[in-house]
Amino acid sequence: MKIAVVGTGFAGRTLAGGLAELGHQVVIGTRDVAQTLARTKPDVMGNVAYPVWAQTHGHIGLAPFAEAAEGADFFVNATSGAHSVEALTAAGARNLAGKVLLDVSNPLDFQNGFPPNLFVKDTDSLGEQIQRAFPEARVVKSLNTMVGNLFVTPKAVADGDTTVWVSGDDAEAKRTVTELLTQFGWSDVIDLGGIATARATEMMVQVRLLTMTSIGTPMFNFKIAR
Amino acid sequence: MKIAVVGTGFAGRTLAGGLAELGHQVVIGTRDVAQTLARTKPDVMGNVAYPVWAQTHGHIGLAPFAEAAEGADFFVNATSGAHSVEALTAAGARNLAGKVLLDVSNPLDFQNGFPPNLFVKDTDSLGEQIQRAFPEARVVKSLNTMVGNLFVTPKAVADGDTTVWVSGDDAEAKRTVTELLTQFGWSDVIDLGGIATARATEMMVQVRLLTMTSIGTPMFNFKIAR
Repeated sequence: MKIAVVGTGFAGRTLAGGLAELGHQVVIGTRDVAQTLARTKPDVMGNVAYPVWAQTHGHIGLAPFAEAAEGADFFVNATSGAHSVEALTAAGARNLAGKVLLDVSNPLDFQNGFPPNLFVKDTDSLGEQIQRAFPEARVVKSLNTMVGNLFVTPKAVADGDTTVWVSGDDAEAKRTVTELLTQFGWSDVIDLGGIATARATEMMVQVRLLTMTSIGTPMFNFKIAR
Repeated sequence: MKIAVVGTGFAGRTLAGGLAELGHQVVIGTRDVAQTLARTKPDVMGNVAYPVWAQTHGHIGLAPFAEAAEGADFFVNATSGAHSVEALTAAGARNLAGKVLLDVSNPLDFQNGFPPNLFVKDTDSLGEQIQRAFPEARVVKSLNTMVGNLFVTPKAVADGDTTVWVSGDDAEAKRTVTELLTQFGWSDVIDLGGIATARATEMMVQVRLLTMTSIGTPMFNFKIAR
């Protein structure tokens, strides 16, 4: 597939790398290519600047949102939640129409510090906001319950014996995402239902981040033990 | 210890039974003893009426809230979230003063059907509401992330290899609760921090209930795999 990954941060790069390794043609979309390529400092989590990462990922393109999106068969939203709708709007509703949009974002609000609050929750979700903003896209929420390091390498924790959830209104789109997750090595994919069930997984972010603080590492994942 | 369990539902009975088995003297508090003893029908989850359960648990007392609470060393709040503050008020702030209060409730709002919404979340929690209402009690939130069947028998799922979280402002109270949890068989008890971190675990209820629907059983639990 031709895949557009919207967002140049750690989550987007990780998925771009993993999808390219599966043989897909991947372009990362950004607001301003020159600005992205001029970055030199690591981000707040200590991840290297985009150009440093790009040196070892020359097969992955970088283009303005709309150019990356044009003709793509599959989209990933890996922007920060507060800017997701804006970035996807720049990618173009027309480009998204009919396409699967894997949304890994969370509606984080850092105004009160750590742990973040959620700018939408419980009776609505960011997944639903994106689906409403782009009614012709086929939004699937997934991977938003873990640290980005695990997205494409689930075996990095507990030999991959952990859980990932999917939410979406379009059954075929969920099958496409589940197939990709399986190719990454995910073995326990739980389908929660329609995109409204993204509320449930988005509300897990506080327990994940506080658990990280308590156990002293982000390298863990939820497993539904049964 | 002399223990008062506030609430006659499945969660309260299960904890009452487990605590009595550990050798504690347990009294269950209810609003109206006569009414509780007059019940004949199973609850919405199919659990037998209180008097049926009481036939095999004659060593566990039943008393009006205030009477059950009087002189108790340790409290359990196992009422439905919407009525917790009211029930604990009836138990008496004076009785609760200085005592550990294990709160296993969730702020469920079933007005919109299933899955329930939360009547408090994200920037506040039921755990904090209870702590504010009874500032002299030492509230510890725990066990609210799983089906009641596992509270005192964690080995019923994955041979007990799953996780339980604790939140509370009082370190000694958390130690007391953690000791009881360990006696029940819990091996992975994660301390999230102060009572404000109850927000994090209370917000897990939707993913738990939707997962139950998806996998077809309530007999599972979250495990932090690392």
